[in-house]
Amino acid sequence: MKIGVLGTGVVGEAIATALAEKGHKVMMGSRTAGNEKAMAWVQKAGEMAREGTFGEAALFGEILFLCLNGEHALNALAFAGLERFSGKVVVDITNPLDFTKGMPPRILQQFSGGTSLGEEIQKTIPEAMVVKTLNTVNFNLMVDASKVAGGDHNLFICGNNAEAKNKVKQFLSQNFNWKTDHLIDLGGIESARAIEAIVPFWVLVYRSTGTPLFNFKIVQ
Amino acid sequence: MKIGVLGTGVVGEAIATALAEKGHKVMMGSRTAGNEKAMAWVQKAGEMAREGTFGEAALFGEILFLCLNGEHALNALAFAGLERFSGKVVVDITNPLDFTKGMPPRILQQFSGGTSLGEEIQKTIPEAMVVKTLNTVNFNLMVDASKVAGGDHNLFICGNNAEAKNKVKQFLSQNFNWKTDHLIDLGGIESARAIEAIVPFWVLVYRSTGTPLFNFKIVQ
Repeated sequence: MKIGVLGTGVVGEAIATALAEKGHKVMMGSRTAGNEKAMAWVQKAGEMAREGTFGEAALFGEILFLCLNGEHALNALAFAGLERFSGKVVVDITNPLDFTKGMPPRILQQFSGGTSLGEEIQKTIPEAMVVKTLNTVNFNLMVDASKVAGGDHNLFICGNNAEAKNKVKQFLSQNFNWKTDHLIDLGGIESARAIEAIVPFWVLVYRSTGTPLFNFKIVQ
Repeated sequence: MKIGVLGTGVVGEAIATALAEKGHKVMMGSRTAGNEKAMAWVQKAGEMAREGTFGEAALFGEILFLCLNGEHALNALAFAGLERFSGKVVVDITNPLDFTKGMPPRILQQFSGGTSLGEEIQKTIPEAMVVKTLNTVNFNLMVDASKVAGGDHNLFICGNNAEAKNKVKQFLSQNFNWKTDHLIDLGGIESARAIEAIVPFWVLVYRSTGTPLFNFKIVQ
Protein backbone atom coordinates (compact mmCIF):
# COMPACT_ATOMS: atom_id res chain seq x y z
CA MET A 1 0.00 0.00 0.00
CA LYS A 2 1.11 3.59 -0.52
CA ILE A 3 1.39 5.49 2.74
CA GLY A 4 1.92 9.17 3.48
CA VAL A 5 3.50 10.07 6.80
CA LEU A 6 3.33 13.76 7.63
CA GLY A 7 6.00 14.70 10.12
CA THR A 8 9.69 13.96 10.60
CA GLY A 9 9.87 13.68 14.40
CA VAL A 10 10.27 10.50 16.42
CA VAL A 11 6.66 9.48 15.85
CA GLY A 12 6.81 10.04 12.10
CA GLU A 13 10.10 8.20 11.83
CA ALA A 14 8.85 5.24 13.86
CA ILE A 15 5.65 4.90 11.81
CA ALA A 16 7.43 5.39 8.47
CA THR A 17 10.22 2.96 9.32
CA ALA A 18 7.86 0.23 10.51
CA LEU A 19 5.69 0.53 7.40
CA ALA A 20 8.61 0.51 4.98
CA GLU A 21 9.88 -2.64 6.72
CA LYS A 22 6.46 -4.21 6.21
CA GLY A 23 6.82 -3.65 2.47
CA HIS A 24 4.71 -0.54 2.03
CA LYS A 25 5.79 2.35 -0.15
CA VAL A 26 6.15 5.22 2.28
CA MET A 27 6.60 8.92 1.62
CA MET A 28 7.67 11.05 4.56
CA GLY A 29 6.37 14.59 4.16
CA SER A 30 7.80 17.73 5.64
CA ARG A 31 7.38 21.47 5.16
CA THR A 32 10.05 21.59 2.46
CA ALA A 33 11.27 18.92 0.09
CA GLY A 34 14.82 17.85 0.85
CA ASN A 35 14.32 18.16 4.62
CA GLU A 36 17.47 16.92 6.35
CA LYS A 37 15.73 14.44 8.68
CA ALA A 38 13.55 13.09 5.88
CA MET A 39 16.58 12.65 3.60
CA ALA A 40 18.47 10.82 6.35
CA TRP A 41 15.47 8.57 6.91
CA VAL A 42 15.22 7.71 3.19
CA GLN A 43 18.91 6.76 3.19
CA LYS A 44 18.37 4.45 6.14
CA ALA A 45 15.00 2.99 5.18
CA GLY A 46 15.91 1.89 1.68
CA GLU A 47 14.00 1.43 -1.52
CA MET A 48 10.47 1.57 -0.09
CA ALA A 49 11.16 5.05 1.28
CA ARG A 50 10.87 8.44 -0.36
CA GLU A 51 10.41 11.98 0.88
CA GLY A 52 8.61 15.10 -0.24
CA THR A 53 6.53 18.02 0.88
CA PHE A 54 3.47 17.66 3.11
CA GLY A 55 1.38 18.11 -0.03
CA GLU A 56 3.25 15.46 -1.99
CA ALA A 57 2.95 12.98 0.88
CA ALA A 58 -0.79 13.69 1.22
CA LEU A 59 -1.30 13.09 -2.49
CA PHE A 60 0.89 9.96 -2.46
CA GLY A 61 -0.69 8.01 0.37
CA GLU A 62 -3.82 5.90 0.31
CA ILE A 63 -3.70 6.16 4.07
CA LEU A 64 -2.13 9.19 5.74
CA PHE A 65 -0.58 9.37 9.19
CA LEU A 66 -0.51 12.77 10.88
CA CYS A 67 2.60 12.74 13.07
CA LEU A 68 2.72 16.49 13.51
CA ASN A 69 3.44 18.76 16.43
CA GLY A 70 0.03 19.54 17.92
CA GLU A 71 0.55 23.26 17.89
CA HIS A 72 1.36 23.40 14.17
CA ALA A 73 -0.80 20.58 12.82
CA LEU A 74 -3.56 22.73 11.31
CA ASN A 75 -0.98 24.98 9.64
CA ALA A 76 0.69 21.94 8.14
CA LEU A 77 -2.59 20.80 6.61
CA ALA A 78 -3.16 24.22 5.07
CA PHE A 79 0.42 24.23 3.81
CA ALA A 80 -0.12 20.82 2.18
CA GLY A 81 -3.26 22.00 0.40
CA LEU A 82 -6.55 20.97 1.99
CA GLU A 83 -8.01 19.40 -1.16
CA ARG A 84 -5.25 16.82 -1.17
CA PHE A 85 -6.82 15.07 1.82
CA SER A 86 -10.19 14.54 0.14
CA GLY A 87 -11.40 10.95 0.29
CA LYS A 88 -8.37 9.82 2.29
CA VAL A 89 -8.31 7.93 5.56
CA VAL A 90 -6.30 10.19 7.86
CA VAL A 91 -4.92 8.65 11.05
CA ASP A 92 -4.52 11.47 13.55
CA ILE A 93 -1.79 10.77 16.12
CA THR A 94 -1.31 14.38 17.17
CA ASN A 95 -1.45 15.66 20.74
CA PRO A 96 -2.19 19.31 21.55
CA LEU A 97 0.11 19.49 24.56
CA ASP A 98 1.68 22.54 26.15
CA PHE A 99 4.74 21.67 28.24
CA THR A 100 5.75 25.31 28.78
CA LYS A 101 3.77 25.81 31.99
CA GLY A 102 5.15 22.99 34.13
CA MET A 103 3.81 19.56 35.05
CA PRO A 104 1.38 18.13 34.29
CA PRO A 105 1.40 19.41 30.72
CA ARG A 106 -1.74 21.25 29.67
CA ILE A 107 -3.97 20.87 26.67
CA LEU A 108 -3.38 23.85 24.37
CA GLN A 109 -6.17 26.29 25.12
CA GLN A 110 -7.45 26.47 21.54
CA PHE A 111 -8.08 22.71 21.59
CA SER A 112 -9.78 22.46 25.00
CA GLY A 113 -13.19 23.29 26.44
CA GLY A 114 -15.62 21.81 23.94
CA THR A 115 -13.30 20.95 21.10
CA SER A 116 -10.13 18.99 20.42
CA LEU A 117 -7.36 18.89 17.88
CA GLY A 118 -8.94 15.81 16.29
CA GLU A 119 -12.20 17.67 15.72
CA GLU A 120 -10.44 20.77 14.39
CA ILE A 121 -8.48 18.59 11.95
CA GLN A 122 -11.72 16.96 10.75
CA LYS A 123 -13.32 20.42 10.34
CA THR A 124 -10.28 21.63 8.40
CA ILE A 125 -10.36 18.68 5.98
CA PRO A 126 -14.08 17.81 5.90
CA GLU A 127 -13.72 15.55 2.84
CA ALA A 128 -11.21 13.35 4.66
CA MET A 129 -12.11 10.55 7.08
CA VAL A 130 -10.18 11.42 10.22
CA VAL A 131 -9.58 8.61 12.70
CA LYS A 132 -7.98 9.48 16.03
CA THR A 133 -5.88 6.73 17.57
CA LEU A 134 -2.33 5.73 18.64
CA ASN A 135 -1.81 9.08 20.39
CA THR A 136 -2.03 7.51 23.87
CA VAL A 137 1.05 5.29 23.62
CA ASN A 138 4.79 5.73 23.20
CA PHE A 139 6.03 5.68 19.59
CA ASN A 140 7.87 2.39 20.09
CA LEU A 141 4.65 0.78 21.23
CA MET A 142 2.56 2.34 18.44
CA VAL A 143 4.34 0.25 15.84
CA ASP A 144 4.50 -2.98 17.84
CA ALA A 145 1.81 -3.62 20.45
CA SER A 146 3.57 -6.82 21.51
CA LYS A 147 6.38 -4.79 23.10
CA VAL A 148 4.24 -4.50 26.25
CA ALA A 149 2.61 -7.44 28.02
CA GLY A 150 2.42 -9.53 24.85
CA GLY A 151 0.03 -7.01 23.33
CA ASP A 152 -2.63 -7.54 25.99
CA HIS A 153 -3.74 -3.93 26.51
CA ASN A 154 -5.95 -1.37 24.83
CA LEU A 155 -5.92 1.33 22.24
CA PHE A 156 -8.75 3.80 21.75
CA ILE A 157 -10.18 4.93 18.47
CA CYS A 158 -12.76 7.46 17.36
CA GLY A 159 -13.98 9.09 14.20
CA ASN A 160 -17.14 9.87 12.27
CA ASN A 161 -16.76 7.24 9.56
CA ALA A 162 -17.33 3.62 10.62
CA GLU A 163 -15.73 2.18 7.49
CA ALA A 164 -12.60 4.26 7.96
CA LYS A 165 -12.35 3.13 11.60
CA ASN A 166 -12.60 -0.49 10.47
CA LYS A 167 -9.90 0.04 7.85
CA VAL A 168 -7.62 1.55 10.47
CA LYS A 169 -8.30 -1.29 12.90
CA GLN A 170 -7.39 -3.82 10.20
CA PHE A 171 -4.32 -1.84 9.27
CA LEU A 172 -3.09 -1.61 12.88
CA SER A 173 -3.70 -5.30 13.33
CA GLN A 174 -1.86 -6.33 10.17
CA ASN A 175 1.08 -3.98 10.55
CA PHE A 176 1.52 -3.09 14.22
CA ASN A 177 0.29 -6.19 16.12
CA TRP A 178 -2.74 -4.44 17.61
CA LYS A 179 -5.47 -7.07 17.91
CA THR A 180 -8.70 -5.60 16.58
CA ASP A 181 -10.63 -6.57 19.71
CA HIS A 182 -8.14 -4.61 21.80
CA LEU A 183 -9.12 -1.43 20.00
CA ILE A 184 -12.00 0.23 21.81
CA ASP A 185 -14.24 2.39 19.65
CA LEU A 186 -15.26 5.45 21.66
CA GLY A 187 -17.58 6.99 19.06
CA GLY A 188 -17.44 10.03 16.81
CA ILE A 189 -14.57 12.44 16.41
CA GLU A 190 -15.81 14.55 19.36
CA SER A 191 -14.50 11.72 21.55
CA ALA A 192 -11.03 12.95 20.60
CA ARG A 193 -11.52 15.45 23.45
CA ALA A 194 -11.38 12.65 25.99
CA ILE A 195 -8.70 10.64 24.17
CA GLU A 196 -6.41 13.68 23.99
CA ALA A 197 -7.21 14.60 27.59
CA ILE A 198 -5.69 11.41 29.00
CA VAL A 199 -2.24 12.21 27.63
CA PRO A 200 -1.23 14.57 30.49
CA PHE A 201 -2.21 11.67 32.77
CA TRP A 202 -0.03 9.36 30.65
CA VAL A 203 2.88 11.74 31.19
CA LEU A 204 2.41 11.58 34.99
CA VAL A 205 2.24 7.78 34.96
CA TYR A 206 5.44 7.77 32.89
CA ARG A 207 7.08 10.04 35.46
CA SER A 208 5.91 7.74 38.25
CA THR A 209 6.77 4.38 36.67
CA GLY A 210 9.98 5.54 34.98
CA THR A 211 9.33 3.87 31.63
CA PRO A 212 7.34 4.99 28.58
CA LEU A 213 6.79 1.35 27.64
CA PHE A 214 3.49 0.87 29.41
CA ASN A 215 -0.13 1.04 28.43
CA PHE A 216 -3.64 1.06 29.83
CA LYS A 217 -5.63 -2.14 29.92
CA ILE A 218 -9.35 -2.00 30.59
CA VAL A 219 -10.19 -4.79 33.05
CA GLN A 220 -13.68 -5.92 34.00
CA MET B 1 -11.87 5.17 63.69
CA LYS B 2 -14.20 8.16 63.46
CA ILE B 3 -15.00 9.06 59.86
CA GLY B 4 -16.78 12.05 58.36
CA VAL B 5 -18.45 11.58 55.00
CA LEU B 6 -19.57 14.82 53.36
CA GLY B 7 -22.31 14.17 50.85
CA THR B 8 -25.47 12.07 50.69
CA GLY B 9 -25.38 10.94 47.05
CA VAL B 10 -24.55 7.45 45.79
CA VAL B 11 -20.83 7.93 46.43
CA GLY B 12 -21.32 9.21 49.98
CA GLU B 13 -23.75 6.43 50.78
CA ALA B 14 -21.45 3.73 49.39
CA ILE B 15 -18.44 5.01 51.34
CA ALA B 16 -20.39 5.56 54.57
CA THR B 17 -22.10 2.17 54.39
CA ALA B 18 -18.89 0.27 53.72
CA LEU B 19 -17.08 2.00 56.59
CA ALA B 20 -19.90 1.48 59.09
CA GLU B 21 -19.89 -2.20 58.14
CA LYS B 22 -16.16 -2.30 58.84
CA GLY B 23 -16.85 -1.10 62.39
CA HIS B 24 -15.99 2.57 62.02
CA LYS B 25 -18.12 5.28 63.56
CA VAL B 26 -19.37 7.23 60.58
CA MET B 27 -21.12 10.58 60.43
CA MET B 28 -22.77 11.48 57.14
CA GLY B 29 -22.82 15.25 56.69
CA SER B 30 -25.22 17.29 54.63
CA ARG B 31 -26.17 20.93 54.24
CA THR B 32 -28.81 20.69 56.95
CA ALA B 33 -29.11 18.34 59.91
CA GLY B 34 -32.01 15.94 59.55
CA ASN B 35 -31.52 15.57 55.80
CA GLU B 36 -33.92 12.96 54.52
CA LYS B 37 -31.34 10.82 52.72
CA ALA B 38 -28.94 10.97 55.66
CA MET B 39 -31.69 10.00 58.11
CA ALA B 40 -32.71 7.05 55.90
CA TRP B 41 -29.09 5.95 55.74
CA VAL B 42 -28.70 6.08 59.53
CA GLN B 43 -31.80 3.90 59.90
CA LYS B 44 -30.35 1.34 57.52
CA ALA B 45 -26.73 1.43 58.63
CA GLY B 46 -27.35 0.89 62.32
CA GLU B 47 -25.52 1.86 65.46
CA MET B 48 -22.22 2.91 63.88
CA ALA B 49 -24.05 5.53 61.83
CA ARG B 50 -25.02 9.07 62.64
CA GLU B 51 -25.81 12.17 60.64
CA GLY B 52 -25.28 15.90 60.98
CA THR B 53 -24.33 19.04 59.13
CA PHE B 54 -21.25 19.31 56.92
CA GLY B 55 -19.59 21.16 59.79
CA GLU B 56 -20.46 18.51 62.35
CA ALA B 57 -19.19 15.73 60.09
CA ALA B 58 -15.95 17.62 59.45
CA LEU B 59 -15.40 18.08 63.18
CA PHE B 60 -16.33 14.46 63.93
CA GLY B 61 -14.04 12.61 61.54
CA GLU B 62 -10.37 11.83 61.92
CA ILE B 63 -10.43 11.18 58.19
CA LEU B 64 -12.91 12.99 55.97
CA PHE B 65 -14.29 11.86 52.63
CA LEU B 66 -15.50 14.56 50.24
CA CYS B 67 -18.31 12.94 48.25
CA LEU B 68 -19.73 16.21 46.99
CA ASN B 69 -21.10 17.38 43.68
CA GLY B 70 -18.14 18.96 41.91
CA GLU B 71 -19.93 22.17 41.14
CA HIS B 72 -20.89 22.83 44.77
CA ALA B 73 -17.93 21.32 46.62
CA LEU B 74 -16.16 24.60 47.49
CA ASN B 75 -19.44 26.08 48.74
CA ALA B 76 -19.98 23.06 50.95
CA LEU B 77 -16.57 23.54 52.56
CA ALA B 78 -17.31 27.19 53.28
CA PHE B 79 -20.71 26.21 54.64
CA ALA B 80 -19.06 23.66 56.96
CA GLY B 81 -16.60 26.22 58.33
CA LEU B 82 -13.11 26.11 56.84
CA GLU B 83 -11.30 25.90 60.19
CA ARG B 84 -12.98 22.57 60.91
CA PHE B 85 -10.77 20.88 58.30
CA SER B 86 -7.49 21.96 59.91
CA GLY B 87 -5.10 19.10 60.51
CA LYS B 88 -7.45 16.56 58.93
CA VAL B 89 -6.70 14.09 56.17
CA VAL B 90 -9.29 14.93 53.51
CA VAL B 91 -9.90 12.34 50.79
CA ASP B 92 -11.18 14.21 47.76
CA ILE B 93 -13.38 12.03 45.53
CA THR B 94 -15.07 14.92 43.72
CA ASN B 95 -15.25 15.34 39.97
CA PRO B 96 -15.82 18.74 38.34
CA LEU B 97 -17.91 17.42 35.46
CA ASP B 98 -20.39 19.28 33.30
CA PHE B 99 -22.86 16.94 31.58
CA THR B 100 -25.07 19.78 30.29
CA LYS B 101 -23.27 20.22 26.97
CA GLY B 102 -23.47 16.69 25.56
CA MET B 103 -20.97 13.86 25.36
CA PRO B 104 -18.23 13.56 26.32
CA PRO B 105 -18.84 15.52 29.52
CA ARG B 106 -16.60 18.54 29.99
CA ILE B 107 -14.50 19.64 32.93
CA LEU B 108 -16.20 22.66 34.53
CA GLN B 109 -14.44 25.69 33.14
CA GLN B 110 -13.44 27.10 36.54
CA PHE B 111 -11.52 23.90 37.29
CA SER B 112 -9.71 23.51 33.96
CA GLY B 113 -6.76 25.16 32.24
CA GLY B 114 -4.07 25.23 34.88
CA THR B 115 -6.04 24.24 37.94
CA SER B 116 -8.34 21.49 39.18
CA LEU B 117 -10.99 20.98 41.79
CA GLY B 118 -8.49 19.11 43.95
CA GLU B 119 -6.14 22.07 43.97
CA GLU B 120 -8.92 24.56 44.65
CA ILE B 121 -10.07 22.44 47.58
CA GLN B 122 -6.52 22.35 48.97
CA LYS B 123 -6.26 26.15 48.55
CA THR B 124 -9.61 26.62 50.29
CA ILE B 125 -8.59 24.50 53.31
CA PRO B 126 -4.81 25.04 53.41
CA GLU B 127 -4.46 23.55 56.90
CA ALA B 128 -5.95 20.25 55.73
CA MET B 129 -4.03 17.48 53.97
CA VAL B 130 -6.00 16.89 50.79
CA VAL B 131 -5.47 13.59 49.01
CA LYS B 132 -7.14 13.07 45.63
CA THR B 133 -8.07 9.49 44.84
CA LEU B 134 -10.98 7.08 44.15
CA ASN B 135 -12.60 9.55 41.73
CA THR B 136 -11.69 7.44 38.68
CA VAL B 137 -13.80 4.39 39.53
CA ASN B 138 -17.47 3.57 40.01
CA PHE B 139 -18.75 3.88 43.61
CA ASN B 140 -19.29 0.11 43.91
CA LEU B 141 -15.66 -0.46 43.02
CA MET B 142 -14.36 2.32 45.29
CA VAL B 143 -15.39 0.36 48.38
CA ASP B 144 -14.31 -3.06 47.15
CA ALA B 145 -11.47 -3.27 44.63
CA SER B 146 -11.94 -7.05 44.38
CA LYS B 147 -15.22 -6.56 42.50
CA VAL B 148 -13.20 -6.20 39.27
CA ALA B 149 -10.56 -8.71 38.12
CA GLY B 150 -9.79 -9.83 41.67
CA GLY B 151 -8.50 -6.36 42.48
CA ASP B 152 -5.71 -6.49 39.91
CA HIS B 153 -5.94 -2.94 38.56
CA ASN B 154 -4.85 0.54 39.53
CA LEU B 155 -5.93 3.56 41.46
CA PHE B 156 -4.18 6.92 41.28
CA ILE B 157 -3.38 9.19 44.17
CA CYS B 158 -1.91 12.63 44.59
CA GLY B 159 -1.47 15.24 47.27
CA ASN B 160 1.13 17.51 48.82
CA ASN B 161 1.60 15.57 52.06
CA ALA B 162 3.44 12.25 51.81
CA GLU B 163 2.35 11.07 55.25
CA ALA B 164 -1.30 11.75 54.46
CA LYS B 165 -0.98 9.84 51.18
CA ASN B 166 0.47 6.88 53.05
CA LYS B 167 -2.33 6.98 55.60
CA VAL B 168 -4.90 6.97 52.82
CA LYS B 169 -3.16 4.10 51.05
CA GLN B 170 -3.22 2.07 54.28
CA PHE B 171 -6.82 2.99 54.87
CA LEU B 172 -7.92 1.95 51.38
CA SER B 173 -6.00 -1.27 51.72
CA GLN B 174 -7.50 -2.14 55.11
CA ASN B 175 -11.06 -1.14 54.32
CA PHE B 176 -11.64 -1.31 50.58
CA ASN B 177 -9.31 -4.12 49.36
CA TRP B 178 -7.04 -1.78 47.39
CA LYS B 179 -3.54 -3.28 47.55
CA THR B 180 -1.12 -0.50 48.38
CA ASP B 181 1.16 -1.38 45.47
CA HIS B 182 -1.78 -0.96 43.10
CA LEU B 183 -2.06 2.68 44.13
CA ILE B 184 0.11 4.80 41.87
CA ASP B 185 1.36 8.04 43.41
CA LEU B 186 1.31 10.74 40.74
CA GLY B 187 2.82 13.52 42.83
CA GLY B 188 1.53 16.76 44.36
CA ILE B 189 -2.03 18.00 44.34
CA GLU B 190 -1.49 19.70 40.95
CA SER B 191 -1.63 16.20 39.50
CA ALA B 192 -5.35 16.29 40.29
CA ARG B 193 -5.66 18.10 36.95
CA ALA B 194 -4.70 14.95 35.08
CA ILE B 195 -6.56 12.57 37.41
CA GLU B 196 -9.79 14.56 37.02
CA ALA B 197 -9.23 14.90 33.28
CA ILE B 198 -9.45 11.15 32.66
CA VAL B 199 -13.01 10.94 33.97
CA PRO B 200 -14.68 12.10 30.71
CA PHE B 201 -12.64 9.33 29.09
CA TRP B 202 -13.95 6.91 31.75
CA VAL B 203 -17.49 7.92 30.81
CA LEU B 204 -16.85 7.10 27.13
CA VAL B 205 -15.34 3.72 27.99
CA TYR B 206 -18.40 3.04 30.15
CA ARG B 207 -20.64 3.95 27.18
CA SER B 208 -18.61 1.65 24.94
CA THR B 209 -18.31 -1.36 27.27
CA GLY B 210 -21.77 -1.07 28.79
CA THR B 211 -20.72 -1.60 32.39
CA PRO B 212 -19.38 0.79 35.03
CA LEU B 213 -17.61 -2.11 36.72
CA PHE B 214 -14.28 -1.78 34.96
CA ASN B 215 -10.99 -0.13 35.74
CA PHE B 216 -7.67 0.82 34.23
CA LYS B 217 -4.68 -1.40 34.77
CA ILE B 218 -1.22 -0.11 33.93
CA VAL B 219 0.65 -2.89 32.13
CA GLN B 220 4.35 -2.90 31.31
